[in-house]
Amino acid sequence: MTEHFAFHLKTTDGLARLGEITTSRGVIRTPAFMPVGTVATVKALYPDQVRDAGADILLGNTYHLMLRPGAERIARLGGLHKFMRWDGPILTDSGGFQVMSLGKIRKITEEGVAFQSHLDGSRHMLSPERSIEIQCLLGADIQMQFDECIELPAERREVERAMELSLRWAERSKRAFEAQRAAGGAHAGQALFGIVQGGTDAELRHRSAAALVDMDFPGYAVGGLAVGEGHEAMIATLGQTLPALPTDKPRYLMGVGTPLDLIESVRLGVDMFDCVMPTRNGRHGYAFTWNGALNMRNAKFAEDMSPLDELSSCPGARDYSKAYVHHLIKSGEFLGAMILSWVNTVFYQDLMAAMRDAIAHGRFAEWADETKARITKRPAAP
Amino acid sequence: MTEHFAFHLKTTDGLARLGEITTSRGVIRTPAFMPVGTVATVKALYPDQVRDAGADILLGNTYHLMLRPGAERIARLGGLHKFMRWDGPILTDSGGFQVMSLGKIRKITEEGVAFQSHLDGSRHMLSPERSIEIQCLLGADIQMQFDECIELPAERREVERAMELSLRWAERSKRAFEAQRAAGGAHAGQALFGIVQGGTDAELRHRSAAALVDMDFPGYAVGGLAVGEGHEAMIATLGQTLPALPTDKPRYLMGVGTPLDLIESVRLGVDMFDCVMPTRNGRHGYAFTWNGALNMRNAKFAEDMSPLDELSSCPGARDYSKAYVHHLIKSGEFLGAMILSWVNTVFYQDLMAAMRDAIAHGRFAEWADETKARITKRPAAP
Repeated sequence: MTEHFAFHLKTTDGLARLGEITTSRGVIRTPAFMPVGTVATVKALYPDQVRDAGADILLGNTYHLMLRPGAERIARLGGLHKFMRWDGPILTDSGGFQVMSLGKIRKITEEGVAFQSHLDGSRHMLSPERSIEIQCLLGADIQMQFDECIELPAERREVERAMELSLRWAERSKRAFEAQRAAGGAHAGQALFGIVQGGTDAELRHRSAAALVDMDFPGYAVGGLAVGEGHEAMIATLGQTLPALPTDKPRYLMGVGTPLDLIESVRLGVDMFDCVMPTRNGRHGYAFTWNGALNMRNAKFAEDMSPLDELSSCPGARDYSKAYVHHLIKSGEFLGAMILSWVNTVFYQDLMAAMRDAIAHGRFAEWADETKARITKRPAAP
Repeated sequence: MTEHFAFHLKTTDGLARLGEITTSRGVIRTPAFMPVGTVATVKALYPDQVRDAGADILLGNTYHLMLRPGAERIARLGGLHKFMRWDGPILTDSGGFQVMSLGKIRKITEEGVAFQSHLDGSRHMLSPERSIEIQCLLGADIQMQFDECIELPAERREVERAMELSLRWAERSKRAFEAQRAAGGAHAGQALFGIVQGGTDAELRHRSAAALVDMDFPGYAVGGLAVGEGHEAMIATLGQTLPALPTDKPRYLMGVGTPLDLIESVRLGVDMFDCVMPTRNGRHGYAFTWNGALNMRNAKFAEDMSPLDELSSCPGARDYSKAYVHHLIKSGEFLGAMILSWVNTVFYQDLMAAMRDAIAHGRFAEWADETKARITKRPAAP
């Protein structure tokens, strides 16, 4: 009954890849961008808008959901899909990244991470075993190994230490996931991905990738990027890391990124992305359009009655004028954040669809050059 | 080409009235509830949701819109309807109420009100003539005379002074509106309403009503209620005031109210209402349902997977569980405010539709008793 988790590489164009991931909850067309539904909602969007935007899969955050409303509670209520009204696939992160960026008074040991909730100070422990247990309670279709993600720049030996620890946690995550499967807590339509760490150091990345490939995960993420190293260093590291990964498994670049980041990463062979940028930047007044990113707070839009983006497939981008959205954002109105989060989420899905189309037609490089020329403006970090 | 403004009283049931207001932008079925679109948006709702809820007419706030984005700017952009994508009728208040509740360092003279913006401290003057000019620039289908609305309780002579001043401002508002019509700033499909003042004093209310009726407005509002006097005093004042108004003109009770307020006011013969309660209470976590008002922050909803309101005509009330909305509200997520503002806006429209149906079938009193028994819970003020 349950579809087995599988990845099918349909075609390539240079290093860029067109594929499909099959899960028991449906097919994910790759390259794919996953909107982020941190606390069981993609911020300021109705689930129907996310679906209609063309998203095949969402991301949920283990750290946030374990604290509120709690993994056991979500399990009692029928799982995350039912809870948030999203019947497509969901990927959950392991909590590793956020426990370190948001949690307080943390202590990292071989066992895991002890921390206090940023919400109420309550004490918690995340370990590879507990992370997988939570991801299974949530019912995530794609789960991530527990890892330690450090900020860059960092000393090489610190990067190496975290990478080695993450490898040991990868082993434990894998055993925990297999135990869940054996006990009925996960099924064959779900999968656990390993995460390559190693900062911007090619040798560390290669060691991490080789060890994970030995463990034979059904998919591999590249973690620990977009954490302060900049676009060029990120793309360079990616170019050195991806060749160490098998071509018959999906590759997921975590927490990335700008439209330019996505284009350059797909060019190198990345299949999956997630990022809060479309919604976070939307809330802060930035619109991603086919004419570049626009800061809707700019006074030049105050009397511009042209639509936000007449080239968008998003009804909101065609219906609402720049002048109106400028007014809404300046006034701090919900509808401004709602419209821009919607427009940006659709833009990101349209961008991925355009990349898939370009790869299918063997003209990715040409498409990428044209598109980058159009999307020259990158929004300032809000 | 332009439909003339008109009111048609279709039938009555006791004092309750079923009617239709015709404007050049469409018909308003009465009794009608007008969602409040303070700064050119009904908070946390897409305009399509407001329309689909069954609202025939919206309210816009002169005070807010004159300050941001500015009436002249909206006029240059084609008027308020085009600006906010609402092609049905719009009623604007005169700015009188809000200039006194929100504006700073105000000075009230015979001429009008001098005040400073609550946004940036800029200095402005509102007078009957300027208020009408602004309402015409916005393109409001129903406009309100400029008035002085004072807080209750107040000394009788203070209530009388404000009522008398409001009558003189009514005359000036009417002359200004007629001048606008003569100059092409307004047309026959638009109308100006007078506002009865006088606090909770029946004699003052009668004097105010009689003077306004002498001026022959196409509609009359009852202002200066729901400003601290309580439900019973409001209903008592309404019962004394409405008989002084002609039966062939619409009656509009400003800024009211709870579902119970609406039912009791319709029973006495009110045709139109506006209130921020559906959206404001929604943002604060309150749901109006056919089983009473629910405070969605209450922990008892944390694992209640039943829909918000299975009797609602709002898809959001049937699709989303109480447990999920509880989580969203507790987490301060946009979607919580979006869902509850939507559900409540639909509830208010459904309530008005049910009242119209009950009047049409001559069973308003019976319907009101049944409905009040169901809607026993009134939400605490957030």
